[in-house]
Amino acid sequence: MNKISENQQTAGNLSAAVRDDFWGRYIRLVQEVVIPYQYEALYDRVPEAEPSHAMANFEIAAGRKTGEFHGFVFQDSDVAKWLEAVGYSLHLKRDPGLEARADAVIDLVAAAQQPDGYLNTYFTIKEPGKRWTNLQDCHELYCAGHFIEAAVAYYEATGKDKLLNTMRRMADHIDSIFGPEEGKLKGYDGHQEIELALVKLYRLTGEEKYLKLSSFFIDQRGQEPNFLRQEWEARGRVTHWSGTQTNSMDPSYNQAHLPVREQSEAVGHAVRAVYMYTAMADLAALTKDSALRDACVRLWDNMTGKQMYITGGIGSTHQGEAFTFDYDLPNDTVYAETCASIGLIFFARRMLELEPDARYADVMERALYNNVLGSMAQDGKHYFYVNPLEVWPQACTCNPDKHHVKSERQGWFGCACCPPNVARLLTSMNQYIYTVHGDTLYTNLYIGSEVNTTLGGTAVAVSQQSNYPWEGTVTLQVNPGEAAEFGIALRIPSWSSSAEIRVGGETLSLDESVQQGYCVIRRVWNAGDTIELKLPMEAHRVYAHPELRADAGKTAIQRGPLVYCLEAADNGTPLNSIALHESAPFTEHFEDSLLGGAVVVKGQGSRIEQAGWSGGLYSRAKAPVEAATITAIPYYLWGNRGSGEMKVWIPESKA
Amino acid sequence: MNKISENQQTAGNLSAAVRDDFWGRYIRLVQEVVIPYQYEALYDRVPEAEPSHAMANFEIAAGRKTGEFHGFVFQDSDVAKWLEAVGYSLHLKRDPGLEARADAVIDLVAAAQQPDGYLNTYFTIKEPGKRWTNLQDCHELYCAGHFIEAAVAYYEATGKDKLLNTMRRMADHIDSIFGPEEGKLKGYDGHQEIELALVKLYRLTGEEKYLKLSSFFIDQRGQEPNFLRQEWEARGRVTHWSGTQTNSMDPSYNQAHLPVREQSEAVGHAVRAVYMYTAMADLAALTKDSALRDACVRLWDNMTGKQMYITGGIGSTHQGEAFTFDYDLPNDTVYAETCASIGLIFFARRMLELEPDARYADVMERALYNNVLGSMAQDGKHYFYVNPLEVWPQACTCNPDKHHVKSERQGWFGCACCPPNVARLLTSMNQYIYTVHGDTLYTNLYIGSEVNTTLGGTAVAVSQQSNYPWEGTVTLQVNPGEAAEFGIALRIPSWSSSAEIRVGGETLSLDESVQQGYCVIRRVWNAGDTIELKLPMEAHRVYAHPELRADAGKTAIQRGPLVYCLEAADNGTPLNSIALHESAPFTEHFEDSLLGGAVVVKGQGSRIEQAGWSGGLYSRAKAPVEAATITAIPYYLWGNRGSGEMKVWIPESKA
Repeated sequence: MNKISENQQTAGNLSAAVRDDFWGRYIRLVQEVVIPYQYEALYDRVPEAEPSHAMANFEIAAGRKTGEFHGFVFQDSDVAKWLEAVGYSLHLKRDPGLEARADAVIDLVAAAQQPDGYLNTYFTIKEPGKRWTNLQDCHELYCAGHFIEAAVAYYEATGKDKLLNTMRRMADHIDSIFGPEEGKLKGYDGHQEIELALVKLYRLTGEEKYLKLSSFFIDQRGQEPNFLRQEWEARGRVTHWSGTQTNSMDPSYNQAHLPVREQSEAVGHAVRAVYMYTAMADLAALTKDSALRDACVRLWDNMTGKQMYITGGIGSTHQGEAFTFDYDLPNDTVYAETCASIGLIFFARRMLELEPDARYADVMERALYNNVLGSMAQDGKHYFYVNPLEVWPQACTCNPDKHHVKSERQGWFGCACCPPNVARLLTSMNQYIYTVHGDTLYTNLYIGSEVNTTLGGTAVAVSQQSNYPWEGTVTLQVNPGEAAEFGIALRIPSWSSSAEIRVGGETLSLDESVQQGYCVIRRVWNAGDTIELKLPMEAHRVYAHPELRADAGKTAIQRGPLVYCLEAADNGTPLNSIALHESAPFTEHFEDSLLGGAVVVKGQGSRIEQAGWSGGLYSRAKAPVEAATITAIPYYLWGNRGSGEMKVWIPESKA
Repeated sequence: MNKISENQQTAGNLSAAVRDDFWGRYIRLVQEVVIPYQYEALYDRVPEAEPSHAMANFEIAAGRKTGEFHGFVFQDSDVAKWLEAVGYSLHLKRDPGLEARADAVIDLVAAAQQPDGYLNTYFTIKEPGKRWTNLQDCHELYCAGHFIEAAVAYYEATGKDKLLNTMRRMADHIDSIFGPEEGKLKGYDGHQEIELALVKLYRLTGEEKYLKLSSFFIDQRGQEPNFLRQEWEARGRVTHWSGTQTNSMDPSYNQAHLPVREQSEAVGHAVRAVYMYTAMADLAALTKDSALRDACVRLWDNMTGKQMYITGGIGSTHQGEAFTFDYDLPNDTVYAETCASIGLIFFARRMLELEPDARYADVMERALYNNVLGSMAQDGKHYFYVNPLEVWPQACTCNPDKHHVKSERQGWFGCACCPPNVARLLTSMNQYIYTVHGDTLYTNLYIGSEVNTTLGGTAVAVSQQSNYPWEGTVTLQVNPGEAAEFGIALRIPSWSSSAEIRVGGETLSLDESVQQGYCVIRRVWNAGDTIELKLPMEAHRVYAHPELRADAGKTAIQRGPLVYCLEAADNGTPLNSIALHESAPFTEHFEDSLLGGAVVVKGQGSRIEQAGWSGGLYSRAKAPVEAATITAIPYYLWGNRGSGEMKVWIPESKA
């Protein structure tokens, strides 16, 4: 295991721990509620949730039980994501009871592995002769990828290598099936995931073959003749989902329409896309492949510059859970899947490793504090899969075009990808706060934390304190092992109109020191040196690009990283009766009683006086308008007070 | 045939002919282009249109040709609707060539009739043993209904009874299969149509059994145990459309969720709904059934008061081509099928026979001049099936949630219900202008025309002249056979802010003489007496009910019966950059060069200056706004100048 330890050291050049009231509460929620609840759900012991059957599938595949496979073809991945979250959680805090449960699950997973290393309960139980015949639909490599991620996380937390060895055998088996060599399959998975997982496995083990296999999958994707199309023809154009023939297939759904280095626009299934971009950025960093890096930047720019909701949501349609086209961001028929925003955060994190540019961290922060945080109920047991920016509850039930949108968070889903994805992200949040480039520590997120790293050969501990996102003052205390010169960089968020930074009581000139969105402070640091960042944490209006038709004439309210929304609970219905005066000042106050405490924003506007409407459905006479105080709460808290209307974008009017 | 003539006389107590520049042009288009074009399409001889195979099916069923059935299960109805339109057209103007072609088609249809009277090419060719086993999906009675309507129209135009006799045999056969008697099926068609057709057959022939059969179908619908559900269970829950099992069935799609007299809300497939309501209103008038009449009024009020677009479109979702719920009228994911508005006109016409209330005629006019007229291209060869109120062409191609919306009219469709429905409506327009109640002639539509009727025992001819919808002056010349007292009623449209009526140079007081939306003029009339109606034909703003969330803060422009819209061709893109000043006056001018000539409306507003946008996708800085002249054209002309953005509802702003 020496090899592993060395590589781990090289790859992980910093170690951070979250010490933060705001996020600490969510992380504890994951540890105390979500992980135990999900464990029960995997064993079908949550009465109000749809049965998962995920563990039962492993018991059957391991020969410990008889029965049929049930659930989606990718049901295994729920177990993997749970194990990965457990790994991160144990890394934060050892818990013998949880570890024992996880070890038992790992024993079961390992027992389901086939003699040749293959591991997948669907094909083991249900279609033993059909391995690798429907990569487009069947998620074999995807499930393997999630178990590899779990294995790496669990090893790093506990030092236990049973799952790691299991997944190395599976990875070696995959390597024997896929590759450029004669006789091997020239394919890749319909749902990207294995690619980024193999990079993690490479980083941990130092085994070049895993890096090469990941590169093979990425490089092969979208080459002609198109593998997915050939495979579809070979199986008689039958789709796994209905078991029937399909008339057409569109490889852009799987981002396999073009070689990845030729792609410039985010297309197809959004989660697949961002998982792929994540691996591309990983590989670009590791292999110094500038064509791959350029493709990552182009795809980033298109996705976040033309196809991203203000909440950090991506995916404009539920049909294919997919991107549509530039500036098409409908607020009510939206998809904005939780998993897609989590994947966007993965991608942003990799881009930050590729190059220190605050725009990646800006998007990471946006997705984290809004789309992702909003997906989980305050009880940790209910989730949004779809994260709309405008909801009329009756339309969700009575208009089939909006059936996919829910006005209240649901229990564990039949397709339960989102809840365990939230769990693994929150428990690994410590990995997203900082990056190191050269001898500079970059602070990407303002989350109370302690980080240890080595900068220019000196061991450095930094502790960050703040009451973010409610207050804009952030303090970093820098503690080098000995006085030394290195850089500490602080992100100046794109939402802030100004910022003030003081080091040892001295105010810095931001004009001189801001590079690519970071204020880089290079000096000789002594133990106890303090940096104080003051960000103007005040509610302000945000406008959308004029091409973004859905938001024309409207404004959103943002305060710090938090996007705000209106809810019927505070503003009555219909919310569309309300307009915000374009120059009305906002008032703000922290409301302890609101869902764990939050800053509430109020402003002046107008409301159509419904009682004054004299017509039928249409009328020449306009309804009178009355003055109204408009109350906005953070978007991430919406839908926690029963089912009601909600909207983010508010029409603006002259007073 | 004496019996027939007597009844025809009783039923048709007026005979009208259109003599109108505006509508004359459309009727000629139908006669000169649409009917010949559709004839070619039915024979699969239109190269740019999808093959219909409708005539080929009849040739196969008649044993004149071998081959398979192709097309939808209701493909026969296209032939019927064409024949019906031909009937109306021949009634307007005999045309020996067309009549010969129609006679040959009728010969073929009659030849496809089975010895027992059954007539349906699908079941004759493809599933001979399966008659009447899937009423939910298979449209057998629906197709029969359309042929009955065609038979009545063709007989009334030509006196030729071959198709009439064929369809009487089919109706008698249906009567032997369905009914309350022991051993007969207690069912009804999934797609209503036979009900209203049987009323027409009864009115023409005086045969009570057809009226009773129509009543049976109406009365039986929605009774428990539910016939459609039992049938679905009996055939193993298999649906005709995919040939596979379905998990559930919802009889509200077919308006069979409740007995019709208990229904109060328009639900399900919109065309089916209005065809049923039409028959209900027919039966309520004929049988004096007040419970049926009350249900008609409730359904009318719900549909037109809470679920109708300003264009007279109905159906808010393409999923099931259906109604959704009150005030849910999205402009861009809309359905508003052409056929549904045509059915709404049928229903309105029957309500006007039931009781003279101008609100029925108001809706009839709205649907006719906007949704229906707009569905046909100026060449008569291209049609909208879906009639949106807001279009972003790229969204129609790139966002699957809007694939059903087209930005340009298409050729003859695979499911070609709409074009022949437009043809049969336009050629029978003379039937919609007037109704008679007691000794009063009610003028429902302002269309140049001549009408002959008998009022209080006196033969009366009335000629109407106007340049409607461009000008608001309408002149009626009343010519009784001899001086006599009777009533002439003129609709005061709900869109008009005022009206002036002069009879023989004397101005009437509308306050005294308007009843249920009609100015009823009762006096002794002499030959040559003239009524002059002046309606204020000026562009004005219309607002939507505050609960109609999609239109909140917006206004529509209307001028007379015409709803207006903005197009990119006149206003640039994105149209959502535009707001109309709330108090800006409109200017109007008739533009000869615009698509056959139309009044164009201009107003002052503002436009977001896109070049002044300095942000990325989102920004704190608002784009500047510039003054803009906004140009609106009649909605019915949209999409005739290439593919471009269009919208009806325009945000209003303070100047």
